[in-house]
Amino acid sequence: MNKHTQSNSCQNGRINSFTQLSQMEQQPNKVRFGAEDIRIVDSMIDIIFPPVPFPSNKIFKTMGEEKIREMVWHHHRLLLKTKVGDLFPKNGDAFKMAVDKSADLFVEALGGDPIFTEQHGGFHLRMRHFKVPIDESDREIWLAMYKKTLKEIDFPKEHLEEFWNWIEALSIRMINRRTTMEAVKRHHWSKVRNELIGDKK
Amino acid sequence: MNKHTQSNSCQNGRINSFTQLSQMEQQPNKVRFGAEDIRIVDSMIDIIFPPVPFPSNKIFKTMGEEKIREMVWHHHRLLLKTKVGDLFPKNGDAFKMAVDKSADLFVEALGGDPIFTEQHGGFHLRMRHFKVPIDESDREIWLAMYKKTLKEIDFPKEHLEEFWNWIEALSIRMINRRTTMEAVKRHHWSKVRNELIGDKK
Repeated sequence: MNKHTQSNSCQNGRINSFTQLSQMEQQPNKVRFGAEDIRIVDSMIDIIFPPVPFPSNKIFKTMGEEKIREMVWHHHRLLLKTKVGDLFPKNGDAFKMAVDKSADLFVEALGGDPIFTEQHGGFHLRMRHFKVPIDESDREIWLAMYKKTLKEIDFPKEHLEEFWNWIEALSIRMINRRTTMEAVKRHHWSKVRNELIGDKK
Repeated sequence: MNKHTQSNSCQNGRINSFTQLSQMEQQPNKVRFGAEDIRIVDSMIDIIFPPVPFPSNKIFKTMGEEKIREMVWHHHRLLLKTKVGDLFPKNGDAFKMAVDKSADLFVEALGGDPIFTEQHGGFHLRMRHFKVPIDESDREIWLAMYKKTLKEIDFPKEHLEEFWNWIEALSIRMINRRTTMEAVKRHHWSKVRNELIGDKK
């Protein structure tokens, strides 16, 4: 909890995040609202989106384009069994287009040809997801289904950490519907390592 | 635009807001994604919620409880004619309860008895609104309907600025559904002053 809160704070600024409120000094002597003077409630921020370490091309070099595409499809088939599946088009062709587009992005981000950028111009993932409400629990599910995917497919173990650090941080940027004052939960590599490395022999 | 962006930036920190992106130095020589090395995309924040100046008890002393309650009802009747009205209970009794609760809060915040806090324990307005998705345009409407209310009722002119500065900043805290990278629009007193003071001579 302490770690999350720290990583969500604006270290050098005077601005606190909502999620720090519980840890802030209580000020019982603060004037009440509606008293003789105006009472100023401080600036606040919500989430500080952590840095996102985009992977090197090592993963593409090891897996190749087809395996990356298969991974993205595997993940989406799992998502369809969850409430996140409801966020995708019902129409089969439209769904396929959405997954293929996502696969294009993963191929490029992991070191393949810039097929996504050439067609769509930059990743801009937060912007692209605005039309769909994505809350904290949707992000948890998306990430959990990626963990399941990585356990079920033949992902090169030596690159798991690099891949995980990317998608764990990246997934936070898609949150555009807040439903809690809680800090967004982190799933650092150190916490998932055993489950991911240990599972397949 | 420049003013909005500045007020949304984390001045002393190294963290930028999404809304500053367009003004950030372009770095054409940055390594592309999926190259030899990991490429770290910086931390980002979304909204910095500005400070909220809660009014003094001058407004309550001038208006009294009944006039404040009438104002809150007036505002809600206007909201019902907009899309924000869809966020309220359809049931008449439930709607009345919601408006009365809001009126309790306004009475207390403006200097009356702490009837809201005694019943519900603190204002916690952001938290209380999480169950309803509220986006930037909902906030624009809510605030516009308050402006209309203030023009239509007999609000004491000498306290308009204090009241406006409160609701203008406060309304931003209710936003929990982001649909754009744009900075949240500010409606500073200097911009609305003429409309509010000038209207009723």
